[in-house]
Amino acid sequence: MGFELDYIFHPQSVAIAGASESPDKQGHNYFKNLLEDFDGPVYPINIRAESVLGQKTYKSIRDLPTDVDYVISAIPNRDILDLVDACGEKKVKTLHLFTARFSETGYEKEAELERELLARARKYGIRIIGPNCMGIYYPKVGISFMSGFPKIPGNVGIISQSGGNASEIIQLGASRGIHFSKLVSYGNALDLNEADLIEYLADDPDTDIIGGYIEGVRDGARLVKVLREANKKKPVVLLKGGRTDAGTSMVSSHTASLAGQREVWESMCRQTGTTNVYSMDELIDAIVAFRFMPPATGSNVLVGGGSGGRSVTSADECEEEGLTCAAIPAEVHTELSERDSFFGPWVNNPIDGSIMGGSNLRAENVLEIIAKNPAYDVVINSIGSMGPWMGGTTDPNAKPEEEDPRTRRGRRMLERTLEVCGRLEKPLALVIGDYLPSDQRQLESAQELRRQVMESGFAIFPSIRRASRAIHRLSTYYTRRDKL
Amino acid sequence: MGFELDYIFHPQSVAIAGASESPDKQGHNYFKNLLEDFDGPVYPINIRAESVLGQKTYKSIRDLPTDVDYVISAIPNRDILDLVDACGEKKVKTLHLFTARFSETGYEKEAELERELLARARKYGIRIIGPNCMGIYYPKVGISFMSGFPKIPGNVGIISQSGGNASEIIQLGASRGIHFSKLVSYGNALDLNEADLIEYLADDPDTDIIGGYIEGVRDGARLVKVLREANKKKPVVLLKGGRTDAGTSMVSSHTASLAGQREVWESMCRQTGTTNVYSMDELIDAIVAFRFMPPATGSNVLVGGGSGGRSVTSADECEEEGLTCAAIPAEVHTELSERDSFFGPWVNNPIDGSIMGGSNLRAENVLEIIAKNPAYDVVINSIGSMGPWMGGTTDPNAKPEEEDPRTRRGRRMLERTLEVCGRLEKPLALVIGDYLPSDQRQLESAQELRRQVMESGFAIFPSIRRASRAIHRLSTYYTRRDKL
Repeated sequence: MGFELDYIFHPQSVAIAGASESPDKQGHNYFKNLLEDFDGPVYPINIRAESVLGQKTYKSIRDLPTDVDYVISAIPNRDILDLVDACGEKKVKTLHLFTARFSETGYEKEAELERELLARARKYGIRIIGPNCMGIYYPKVGISFMSGFPKIPGNVGIISQSGGNASEIIQLGASRGIHFSKLVSYGNALDLNEADLIEYLADDPDTDIIGGYIEGVRDGARLVKVLREANKKKPVVLLKGGRTDAGTSMVSSHTASLAGQREVWESMCRQTGTTNVYSMDELIDAIVAFRFMPPATGSNVLVGGGSGGRSVTSADECEEEGLTCAAIPAEVHTELSERDSFFGPWVNNPIDGSIMGGSNLRAENVLEIIAKNPAYDVVINSIGSMGPWMGGTTDPNAKPEEEDPRTRRGRRMLERTLEVCGRLEKPLALVIGDYLPSDQRQLESAQELRRQVMESGFAIFPSIRRASRAIHRLSTYYTRRDKL
Repeated sequence: MGFELDYIFHPQSVAIAGASESPDKQGHNYFKNLLEDFDGPVYPINIRAESVLGQKTYKSIRDLPTDVDYVISAIPNRDILDLVDACGEKKVKTLHLFTARFSETGYEKEAELERELLARARKYGIRIIGPNCMGIYYPKVGISFMSGFPKIPGNVGIISQSGGNASEIIQLGASRGIHFSKLVSYGNALDLNEADLIEYLADDPDTDIIGGYIEGVRDGARLVKVLREANKKKPVVLLKGGRTDAGTSMVSSHTASLAGQREVWESMCRQTGTTNVYSMDELIDAIVAFRFMPPATGSNVLVGGGSGGRSVTSADECEEEGLTCAAIPAEVHTELSERDSFFGPWVNNPIDGSIMGGSNLRAENVLEIIAKNPAYDVVINSIGSMGPWMGGTTDPNAKPEEEDPRTRRGRRMLERTLEVCGRLEKPLALVIGDYLPSDQRQLESAQELRRQVMESGFAIFPSIRRASRAIHRLSTYYTRRDKL
């Protein structure tokens, strides 16, 4: 299959069964978003209202003046079989069912309805997305399921068995500089499943990285084949829901999927070169690494930017996450000692910038000198947790004051650091702590800094541990890929 | 020892050797903060300037008109022995040395100077904090080492071998609703060490929870005894720096400490009932749990507040962190089924609120009904990741609009949820995602929500995984405590 599914993402016309005037209804959101952003006819279907959002409605798909490619169903499940028949008559190619309460309820009657729905769709040659899902978000052509989603397209393709998790990926991603080529929330995977969608995204020229949230596997043998082929072309990062007993039980009542064993999944990921993650944060972190960092194939890391205590905890966290915080090579110590005979030999990895006051060394220059050495594959530089030097205070009762001289110094140091970071010819991650300061001015400074650094194309992580874990995944992927 | 150290925190007068007009110098910060907030004489010592911040300076401690209790040294180490002699003459009780570059440099000459400094201080009966540290933050009496720190006192006592980590604990803590009784950054622990300080905080009536960052242990046998006694009275949460080879090497160049083996430390923590954590985030999370949650002694958790996909990942993460996401007891399903025969039996743990639309069930009422059952020891309720319903949009180019009806609905639901949460008679953790939205209005809403919820006294965590890990530590502590 693969790229032949492309037609699903490029309908000429769309109808929304259950289009509604009420913003409380999801049938409203689908219609409103398409009406605003989709370049083609969009038909509201509503059995009661004469018009929705000022547009003339139709009582049924059958009443449409022409055939239609793509139908979104936001109607109750009791009317679903008739809708499928109507879609058959109108030569619909794709039916996306937001409509839910089928097999996931655990009731036999609802499961039977789902089977019948599939049988009829197959008879008419209609492909089904869902049921029980939010469907497609494809910013380039203006298909979306929530009005606040970014309209800027990107190069990350996502499949998600959960609509809520899909929304969270979009929002978390946007806050980390990630934008999306295509996203599919595919719910119960009655017809189109995870293997179909990953195979498609692997062939999709707009997609450079594939991410996903999967609860159950419909066809394990095929998924293995699809994942191996996909990972040869681009990284696939997957979060598997239902790894524990409680998770498995929940999966069954959410998308009626069989979750399977954690060990089987992990081994499948290793075999296919798939990057396996254990939380939404880890999913986004891994995508950030693949999106903003060049391929890294080794795990020797140089860490800069912290003072003493942070240097210690950074070393521990890097090593606990599978990286090696390798000692400074003798020839580098010699070079540093030529610049300053007292401080040069004292420099360590991580680089403790706080010891260098009054010396002939500057932390950012030391970083650059050491980073050049082939002993290091990758660099992590910490930009602190944005303390008072960012231009605010942690005291909620403090009055606004003139800019603190420490703030000015901090900014100058930051500029020099970013300049050096931009020059390093090694994969680089920056750490900017993501605690929310209670002071408004500090919060705004922190946001502004983050935005600037993000827009400069740096990979940013909220902690050394999360950066290290993502980097380890990055280098594992590129190391494994050649063996696939 | 123990509480007899109380005099160290309550000096009658303070002198700052190296008090400076320049905000670039730490000697400026100490003097400025004490001048503003400390209720007693504060003397600036400066060999060159006639005055600092408008206050007449003295060339030496020896020139002071009276004796002085407490001296802070921010002078170069070459003058340190003379300062100690002068302190001896003026009957100084405590000498805090911000002054650094002693044994941590790795050079024998500097290590020798440190030994001589200790010998002289002992001769005069002067206790030393440091060297190579920021010293005391004690908001109740106005002692601080950075001007932005909160002036509000709290009930958490902290010891930190690193000044940078101490500052981070204060800032991260403040952003999570944590305030401090007393904090000591104690650097190289030449005299006063981790055991002395923990013993003191264990006896301190203002301190209910002890947290710490430790690099090296000066007297292992005594620390074991002190920790066991301390944990009988109040929880002690410790982050150990130097768990890995690279961390251990860094510890040596930071505070000249011997880090020791990770396994030895972990076993010591188990034996003494100490809560052992592996990062700054985990340290703050554990303190938040101890500060805002009542004792929990079991690990059966009820999880609410998520939709389908989040319910699945929540179940997995709770169980992976050592909690048990136990199935809904039959009698509870019976009760729920009496309210709604279709949806009642479908309810699971975690509670998927999104299935209940159009039913006779409401997620928050369901949470309350299930939470009453003795099968559950603790409750986690998720308040989402503050998406568009919080009153903003994730689209950076979107124009400000009227408040979305989803926002109004979201707020009403939130109010009802918090009302129910306030009534639950079980230890409760709330999860509010901490990603930074790119939209300014959404960011402010998120901040405002977080502040309101925090001020209501709820324990808040940024993710289910972090909440689960902290709860597991809470219940482990209270379970172990009875066996100490």
